[in-house]
Amino acid sequence: MKVVTCAAPTNIAVIKYWGKADAVLNTPLNSSLSVTLHQDQLQATTSVASGSALSRTRLWLNGQEQPVNSRVTTVVQEMQQLAQRVHKAAQETQQPLLLVSSNSFPTAAGLASSAAGYACLVAALAEFYHLSTADEEFPGQLSAIARQGSGSACRSLHGGFVAWHKGQRSDGRDSVAVPVADTLHWPELRAIVCVISDQQKDTSSTSGMQRTKATSPLLTYRVEHVVADRMKTMEKAILAKDFAAFGMLTMRDSNQFHATCLDSMPPIFYLNETSREIIRLVHRYNEQAGRVQAAYTFDAGPNAVLFVEEQHVQELVSLVCHCFPNSLNMTIKASMSFDCTPSRALLERMQSKVCCSSEDTFELPHLPDSVKMMYVSRVGGGTRVLSVDEALIDAVTGMPLSYQTAARSHPLSRPRSCLRSDQLLHYVVAAAIVVTSAVLLRK
Amino acid sequence: MKVVTCAAPTNIAVIKYWGKADAVLNTPLNSSLSVTLHQDQLQATTSVASGSALSRTRLWLNGQEQPVNSRVTTVVQEMQQLAQRVHKAAQETQQPLLLVSSNSFPTAAGLASSAAGYACLVAALAEFYHLSTADEEFPGQLSAIARQGSGSACRSLHGGFVAWHKGQRSDGRDSVAVPVADTLHWPELRAIVCVISDQQKDTSSTSGMQRTKATSPLLTYRVEHVVADRMKTMEKAILAKDFAAFGMLTMRDSNQFHATCLDSMPPIFYLNETSREIIRLVHRYNEQAGRVQAAYTFDAGPNAVLFVEEQHVQELVSLVCHCFPNSLNMTIKASMSFDCTPSRALLERMQSKVCCSSEDTFELPHLPDSVKMMYVSRVGGGTRVLSVDEALIDAVTGMPLSYQTAARSHPLSRPRSCLRSDQLLHYVVAAAIVVTSAVLLRK
Repeated sequence: MKVVTCAAPTNIAVIKYWGKADAVLNTPLNSSLSVTLHQDQLQATTSVASGSALSRTRLWLNGQEQPVNSRVTTVVQEMQQLAQRVHKAAQETQQPLLLVSSNSFPTAAGLASSAAGYACLVAALAEFYHLSTADEEFPGQLSAIARQGSGSACRSLHGGFVAWHKGQRSDGRDSVAVPVADTLHWPELRAIVCVISDQQKDTSSTSGMQRTKATSPLLTYRVEHVVADRMKTMEKAILAKDFAAFGMLTMRDSNQFHATCLDSMPPIFYLNETSREIIRLVHRYNEQAGRVQAAYTFDAGPNAVLFVEEQHVQELVSLVCHCFPNSLNMTIKASMSFDCTPSRALLERMQSKVCCSSEDTFELPHLPDSVKMMYVSRVGGGTRVLSVDEALIDAVTGMPLSYQTAARSHPLSRPRSCLRSDQLLHYVVAAAIVVTSAVLLRK
Repeated sequence: MKVVTCAAPTNIAVIKYWGKADAVLNTPLNSSLSVTLHQDQLQATTSVASGSALSRTRLWLNGQEQPVNSRVTTVVQEMQQLAQRVHKAAQETQQPLLLVSSNSFPTAAGLASSAAGYACLVAALAEFYHLSTADEEFPGQLSAIARQGSGSACRSLHGGFVAWHKGQRSDGRDSVAVPVADTLHWPELRAIVCVISDQQKDTSSTSGMQRTKATSPLLTYRVEHVVADRMKTMEKAILAKDFAAFGMLTMRDSNQFHATCLDSMPPIFYLNETSREIIRLVHRYNEQAGRVQAAYTFDAGPNAVLFVEEQHVQELVSLVCHCFPNSLNMTIKASMSFDCTPSRALLERMQSKVCCSSEDTFELPHLPDSVKMMYVSRVGGGTRVLSVDEALIDAVTGMPLSYQTAARSHPLSRPRSCLRSDQLLHYVVAAAIVVTSAVLLRK
């Protein structure tokens, strides 16, 4: 049995996508720009196989069989039809497929799992049907197909810094993702993903976008008059590796996206108390430094992603640990280790009255157990093909490996390193808390 | 000694004022529209006297002598100069003044005490110098003077429903308040003022407005393209007593004002968790009714003002009591009594899955001690002259009555009825909590 396996990264938008121009084509009201995160920390993996034993296409996600929804169906059909046109041999491309996917991080927790998942599906199907960008019938066709699964998935095909141009055509063919700078362009950049417990009801991205588009005058203005300039400014900041400009605009655009949510009727609140305290903390951190050294951004949920350059990542991680301590030790998934205790000098600067222009003295937040865990990541590459031994499908039995491995020490979430039991608990707690916060966080 | 005393109401903007066109003239970037609340619940009282014993103008507020700030000085000078021009006799109008003011409600707690206070000062000075609107050198001159004390004070001169037109002139003479509908126009309308504890740092209105004006693209759009239409729509809804239209636009405009705060850099957060839960509660209340029966609005702080018509006020009061219970009994200052227990039928409708279009079931909020007290008010009249026995200055001694009454059971905050000790505690707690939240909440 032929099995191919691919991996895909998540991406974090620094110019936000909010609002669909066409709900079926999944084209956006405005262009957006994202940073692809390294797959060491957050990764989706998908295996594809086909076989005569299958009577219909079936899908497993994180060890559970799922119904094949219309978006998956669309992506599979588009890829099969492209393969038929390119290769002329239609036989193979009409067989039902076995799709097995898993994430190395909590799914549907507002960590861009849909983006990674649909990008991974497109990559795996491309590999399965021997399609490359050279086979595209128009530039960016693969990303246009990924977009139909989940809008921001088109950006996860590429590494580095990626622009998703909203496009002009009514068929969506020019609504595609294009790299702005490559994976190695800004090696000092770090992203601290703070997984936050969410006690408030969420509005799914899809219904939230509909509501904002239908009711917010401010979104209309943002789409028509704000984003185009910001795309240019952001691209310039990235190309110049100008962290202050990059960080300032990242924060402003995150805030403006959430402002349009608040301008919706009824208003949509994605930020919670912890999110707001992180915002305050970052602004104070920049104030005491006298420049923009850190930036936050929030998608359609309370989780914070903090951008910072390498030389300040230890400071910021320690501040988050200090202000949002975990009653168990803070789990930090990263390629290096961090000290969770901020230096006394930093704490003094943060709380000093004279450091800052603010009228008030600053009290450091203290919200125990509100940040469940952190990933410290960097800029990473796009989708890639994995080796046979990383497959999620057994080539002999043609079954998802989860069935066979349930009793083995090979958890489906597939972190590369062994989990300590307290880390596992953190995963479980984080996953449990966020599971209600919408399978549809597809931004 | 001549003593005159006036009283003035607070007002609640339903089309919000945010952003100054001219910081000195205190002219606004956009027009606004407010509802004047009845003085039975929230009232400022000011006595004015003059005497040769005074070497300079002095000011007492709530029993404490305060420095005479530049805004008070401006208002006094403008009134004195007007009196000199009108009456030609300059002698009396050059003497220093004794100004004694008090509020029947927590001061600087985001309850429009500045609006009431400066309106009251203008009214008392007008009475003191025998000035009426007939003496105005241009239409709305008195409100233009009040505006220079605190922007929204100009609206508190009038009862009923009041528009503050931003004006076009560079001298601010046409930036004045004009009644839209009189005090008796909509007798069924009720306002439930929820005093909420505020544990987050506030940004003062003045500095908040500056920051939003300087940094928010969305405020610019709101000012230039949104408010003018909303003024017309709101006026129409009020004249038609169309609660659904009035309520919907009130909520939308409150949300949009807070959205522009969030779009500021750094972002400004005035709503807290309790505010957001009240927003959710009101939307659910309307959902279960199948129409807009209640509306919220929030100024530059977390306190909610809920509008509702008479036939629904008991229901909404009981829901607030139920969801935000006070560990002591909830203090409700109103001209009638309310049952704090919602009916079982209402609770069932609120939590029913089938009532509403929302995807999720609705859990009633439960945040004990987050709403400190409530005022249930209605539409009221403008400033008025009080009788001699309501003066805050002793005509014989020429001293603020607070000096003499400190030992008497006549608290300076002057609630008309006796305070129970637990009510007093509520006052003290509410006042203490909010005292840091800016003397400058002058919206």
